[in-house]
Amino acid sequence: MPDYQAPLRDLRFVMDEMLEFPAHYARLPGGEEASPDVVSAILEEGARFAREVLLPLNRSGDREGCLLEGGEVKAPKGFKEAYRQYVEGGWPSLSAEPEFGGQGLPPSLGMVLSEMICASNLAWGMYPGLSHGAADALRHHGSDEQKATYLTKLVEGVWTGTMCLTEPHCGTDLGLIKTRAVPAADGSYDITGTKIFISAGEHDLAENIVHLVLAKLPDAPEGSKGISLFVVPKFLPDADGNPGERNGVACGSLEHKMGIHGNATCVMNFDNAKGFLVGAPNKGLACMFTMMNVARIGVGIQGLGLAEASFQNALVYARDRLQMRALSGPKAVDKPADPIIVHPDVRRMLLTQKAFAEGGRMLVMYTAQMVDLVEHGQDAAERERAELLLGLLTPVVKAFLTETGFEATNEGVQVFGGHGFIQEWGMEQLVRDARITRLYEGTTGVQALDLLGRKVLMSQGETLKVFTKEIHKFCQAEADNAELKEFIAPLAKLNGEWGDLTMGVGVKAMHDREEVGAASVDYLIYAGYVTLAYLWARAAKQAQQSLGGEEDAFYKAKLDTARFFYQRLLPRTRAHAQMIQAGAGSLMAMSAEDFGLGFEI
Amino acid sequence: MPDYQAPLRDLRFVMDEMLEFPAHYARLPGGEEASPDVVSAILEEGARFAREVLLPLNRSGDREGCLLEGGEVKAPKGFKEAYRQYVEGGWPSLSAEPEFGGQGLPPSLGMVLSEMICASNLAWGMYPGLSHGAADALRHHGSDEQKATYLTKLVEGVWTGTMCLTEPHCGTDLGLIKTRAVPAADGSYDITGTKIFISAGEHDLAENIVHLVLAKLPDAPEGSKGISLFVVPKFLPDADGNPGERNGVACGSLEHKMGIHGNATCVMNFDNAKGFLVGAPNKGLACMFTMMNVARIGVGIQGLGLAEASFQNALVYARDRLQMRALSGPKAVDKPADPIIVHPDVRRMLLTQKAFAEGGRMLVMYTAQMVDLVEHGQDAAERERAELLLGLLTPVVKAFLTETGFEATNEGVQVFGGHGFIQEWGMEQLVRDARITRLYEGTTGVQALDLLGRKVLMSQGETLKVFTKEIHKFCQAEADNAELKEFIAPLAKLNGEWGDLTMGVGVKAMHDREEVGAASVDYLIYAGYVTLAYLWARAAKQAQQSLGGEEDAFYKAKLDTARFFYQRLLPRTRAHAQMIQAGAGSLMAMSAEDFGLGFEI
Repeated sequence: MPDYQAPLRDLRFVMDEMLEFPAHYARLPGGEEASPDVVSAILEEGARFAREVLLPLNRSGDREGCLLEGGEVKAPKGFKEAYRQYVEGGWPSLSAEPEFGGQGLPPSLGMVLSEMICASNLAWGMYPGLSHGAADALRHHGSDEQKATYLTKLVEGVWTGTMCLTEPHCGTDLGLIKTRAVPAADGSYDITGTKIFISAGEHDLAENIVHLVLAKLPDAPEGSKGISLFVVPKFLPDADGNPGERNGVACGSLEHKMGIHGNATCVMNFDNAKGFLVGAPNKGLACMFTMMNVARIGVGIQGLGLAEASFQNALVYARDRLQMRALSGPKAVDKPADPIIVHPDVRRMLLTQKAFAEGGRMLVMYTAQMVDLVEHGQDAAERERAELLLGLLTPVVKAFLTETGFEATNEGVQVFGGHGFIQEWGMEQLVRDARITRLYEGTTGVQALDLLGRKVLMSQGETLKVFTKEIHKFCQAEADNAELKEFIAPLAKLNGEWGDLTMGVGVKAMHDREEVGAASVDYLIYAGYVTLAYLWARAAKQAQQSLGGEEDAFYKAKLDTARFFYQRLLPRTRAHAQMIQAGAGSLMAMSAEDFGLGFEI
Repeated sequence: MPDYQAPLRDLRFVMDEMLEFPAHYARLPGGEEASPDVVSAILEEGARFAREVLLPLNRSGDREGCLLEGGEVKAPKGFKEAYRQYVEGGWPSLSAEPEFGGQGLPPSLGMVLSEMICASNLAWGMYPGLSHGAADALRHHGSDEQKATYLTKLVEGVWTGTMCLTEPHCGTDLGLIKTRAVPAADGSYDITGTKIFISAGEHDLAENIVHLVLAKLPDAPEGSKGISLFVVPKFLPDADGNPGERNGVACGSLEHKMGIHGNATCVMNFDNAKGFLVGAPNKGLACMFTMMNVARIGVGIQGLGLAEASFQNALVYARDRLQMRALSGPKAVDKPADPIIVHPDVRRMLLTQKAFAEGGRMLVMYTAQMVDLVEHGQDAAERERAELLLGLLTPVVKAFLTETGFEATNEGVQVFGGHGFIQEWGMEQLVRDARITRLYEGTTGVQALDLLGRKVLMSQGETLKVFTKEIHKFCQAEADNAELKEFIAPLAKLNGEWGDLTMGVGVKAMHDREEVGAASVDYLIYAGYVTLAYLWARAAKQAQQSLGGEEDAFYKAKLDTARFFYQRLLPRTRAHAQMIQAGAGSLMAMSAEDFGLGFEI
C-alpha cells in the first residue's frame, strides 16, 4: 500500500527560504495571524490529517466506489467519518473571511493544504474541493441574504457546494446550455434541465448541498451572453437556516469512470427546482469564471499532489528493488543484485518526477502569493499586478501541472515495471486519477487558448511582459554570479525567445486566426517550461547561498535537481519552439472527410 | 461503444504500393501461395473476424474480467466461443510451417492479422498471442519428439502456449530466478517454483496449455548462464498425444490489473511438475530470446493496433461533436456550433494519432519483410542483412510503437474531453490496455539498453550503418526530386546526426559505462522518429507518384500526414538530441538517500 508524507522540508524551502512567505504574510492585512509558528503548526497538522485519515481510504475508496440507491449516494466506507474530522478540525474555514465564519488566514495556506489532500486521496478531496469555488462565487456575486443563508454553511463545511455547468451536449461551449430558469411569483426561479459530470453532486458527507447552476432565462440572448447563475440548494433552508423542504433536484445516475472512483460524479436532474438568481440576469458567465478560476488552480494542485505521491513511492521502490548490476560494476556487492536506483535511466525517471513535483510546488506557491495579493495587496498597483500575473499563470498552473503530473505518475508506474500495472501497489491508481485533471475545468487545449488568445495576445503581449520583465530583472541581477551561470545564461535566452515566439504568432494571427489554435498547446507547454526554469534558477540561487551548513545535503540535492531540470527537461523547449513556429498549414490542409480514407469503406 | 474497421486501404498502400509486398512474396520459397488475391481475401476475412467477433467482446471483457474458482479460470463471456471460431477459421496456423500443420504463408501476413486482433480486443488477443513465441522456441530448440508432441497442437491452436519467466523478485534480471528443475529417473525434470505475471497461464479456451518455463538445474552456474528452458504441459500428453494426467502446475491467483482485464494474468505454482528440457542445459536464455524477440515485435504491434483503434473513434467523435465556432468564423452555419474537427488543436491531436498509426504500420510491415527474409531470404547475405536489421529494429518496434501508442490513445481520450474519462465510450480502456505494452516483454528502458548497448555499440556501430546506409541511398536517389525536398533535406540531415550522436555516446561510454544508460531512452526515441521519418519520406514519394488519378484524395491525405509528421512531430528530435548529449552527470550526482530529503523526516 502506497505511503505519503507531506513534503514539509521542501515546503519550508519554497515558502520560508525562496519565496519569503513570512515577510509576505507580515505585509498582508491580518497577516500577523499567519506567524511562522502558526503556519508551521497548520502544515504539520495538515500533514498528519492527510497521512493518517485520508491516505488509508484512498485505495479502498478506489475499489469500492460510490453507490446510488433510492436517489441517495453513499460515498465509500470511511469517507463520511473523515469529512466529519475535517470539519471538526476547522479545515474548511482556514482561509475564509472571518465575516462569514472563516479563520481569516491567507488563501495561500489553504492551497498548501490542498496539495496534501490531493496527494493522499484525490477522490475524497473532490467532496470539499468544489465548495471553495461555490463560496467564492457567492461572496463576490451573491446578495447579502444569499451570503447569510449559504456562505457561512459552506465556509464551516457543514454544507458542500457544486458547480453545475456541463450538459450532455456541451461542456466547453456553455453558450449552448438548455437548462431553463422560469421566474416564479415569489422572486425565485423554477430550474429545469439536466447537468452531467457534477462532482460531489450527491453524497452523504454533509447535511446539505448547495448547487451553483448555470441556466437560461426565458428572454435570454443567444449564446454565452444569455447565461445566468442560480443557487439551488438540495434542501431549501427553513426559517432558521436549517435544511428544510427537499428541492426538485436529484441524482439521476453515477458515471463509471477511469479513476477518482471514490468521488460521486453525478448526472443531476433539475425538475422545477427552486433556484435563486446570483448576480445580474445574463451575467452568469462572469460569476462562473470566479468559480472556475479558483477551480482551475485547484486542479493544477491536484496534478502536483499526484506527482509528489507517485515520486515518493517510486523512490522507496527503486531503493528496495534489486535487479541487475550497475553498468559500471556492482554497487551492493553483498546482495544478489543492485537496487535499481543505481541505473541511470531509473534515476532519470525519478528525477523527472522530483523536478516536476518540486518545480510545480514552487509554481503553485508563487501563484499563491498572487492569490493573496489580488484581494489583499497594499495598493491598487500591487493588486493589479497580482491580478495580471494570476490571470497569466492560471492556465499554466492548470494545464502544465496536470500534463506533467500525468507524466510523473506514469514514470512512477514505469519505475515499478510490471508491478506498476498491478492494482495493489497503488501506482496505476495515481495514473487513472491523474487522467481526469487534464480534462476537467477546461482541457489543456482550452487552457492553451485562454493563455495565448485571451491573456497574451488580447493584451498585445502586455500581460506577458509583466512576467518576462520580472525574469529579465532576475537574470540581470545575477548576470555576474559565476556560480549560477549554467542557469542564468539559458534562462535569459529562453526569456527573450518567449517574446519573439509570441510576436511571431501574433503577426501570423493577424492574417489567420487559426494560427492561434495551431500554436496554442505547444505555446502553453513552452511557457510552462520557461516558468519552471525561472523558478528553478531562483531555487538554485537560494540553495547556493545556503550551502556550507548542517543541511548541505538538502541544498546540494536541490542544486542537482535544478541542474537535471536544465539539462534533461528544458531541452524540450527546442521541440516546442519549432512546433509553435511551424504554423497552421499542416493542420488545416486535410478535409474532415479525408482523415478517414485509410479505413473507411 | 467504440467501432473498429481494419484499415484495409492503408494496408494496401503500405504493402502493395510502398513496400512492394507482391514482389517480396513472389521471391520467397512457396511465396506463390501468397498471391495478391489470397492476401486480399485473408485481410478481408481477418477484418471481418476482428470487427464482428472480437470487437463486441472488448468492453464486456473489460468489465467482466476473469474468474478463478477451484483452480479453474473462466475467461469473460464469449471469449471461448470466439477462440473456437479462430481455430476453426485456421487463423493460428496461417504462417506456420506445413511440416507442423501450418499453412506456410509468410510470417508477415500473421503480423497484419495481429494488428487487427490487438486493435479490436487486446485482452482476447493475449490468449493465442503467446503461442507463437512458444511454438517458435520449440521449432528452433525442441527435440523431434517435442515438436511432434507439442508443436502441431500449438500450430493448430487446439493448445495454447505461455512464457513462464518472471518471478516475484525478478523480471528483467532473470539470472536471479529460483525455480528449480531436478532430474527425474525417466529423463524428465521435477519443476518447483512460483512464476508471476503469466499471461493466459490458465483459462478455459483450449484443452491444454503448454508452459515454457525457465528454471535452474541443481548444478547450474550462477546468474543468467545457469538458466535452462523446460516445456511443462498442463495435462501430460497420453500415448495418443491427447491431454492425459494433470501435471503439478496450477494457477494460484489472478492479478488485479489496470487494464487487459479480459486476459488471465496468473500466478503459476509449479509443485514438482513434470517438465522436459528444451535445448541444451544452461542454454535457456538463448531459447528464451527466440520467444522474446517474437513477443517483442508482437507487443509493438499491440501499440500500433491500439493507436489505430483510438484514432478511428476520436475521428468519428470529432466530426460529430458540436462545440464552439472556428476562430476564423463559423463553418457549419446551419448548426448551433461547429464540429470540433474544425479546431486546429483537435486536428493536431487527430493527426498525431494518424501519423503514429500509419507510420507505425509502415514500420511493422518494413520489419515484417525482415522477419520473412531471416529464414527465407534467397542467400546468406540477404538473410544476414535481414537478421541485422531485425535485431536493430526489434527494440524500436517494441518501445517506440508502445510509447507512441500510449500517447495516441491518450490523445483519443483528450479529443473526447470529459467523455473520454467515462467508461462507456471505451476510450479510457484503450489507455489502460495500452499502459501494459510499455512494460511487459521488457520495459522501454530495457529495450533502449538493448538497442544502444547491445545492437549499436557492441557492433561498433556496424549494425546501425546497415540501416543508415539504406536511408542515405534513398536520400541520394531523391536528392534532385524537387517535390520531395521538404522531406529529403531534413531526413538526410537527421540521418547524419544519428551517426554523430552514436559516435558521441560511444566515445563517452569508453570512459564511463553509465553514459550508455543515461542516453539510452532518448536515443531509442530519437531512433524511432528518424526511422519513421525515413518511412514517411518513402510514403510521400509513393503518394506523390500516384497523384492525378481517381484516388487523389487518398494520396493527398497521405502527403498531408507526412508533412504533419515532419513539421509537428519530428521537431521532437531536437529535444532528444540535446538530452542524448547531456550525459550522465546530472543523473548520477545525487546519492540514493538524498533523493528523499524533501519529505523524509
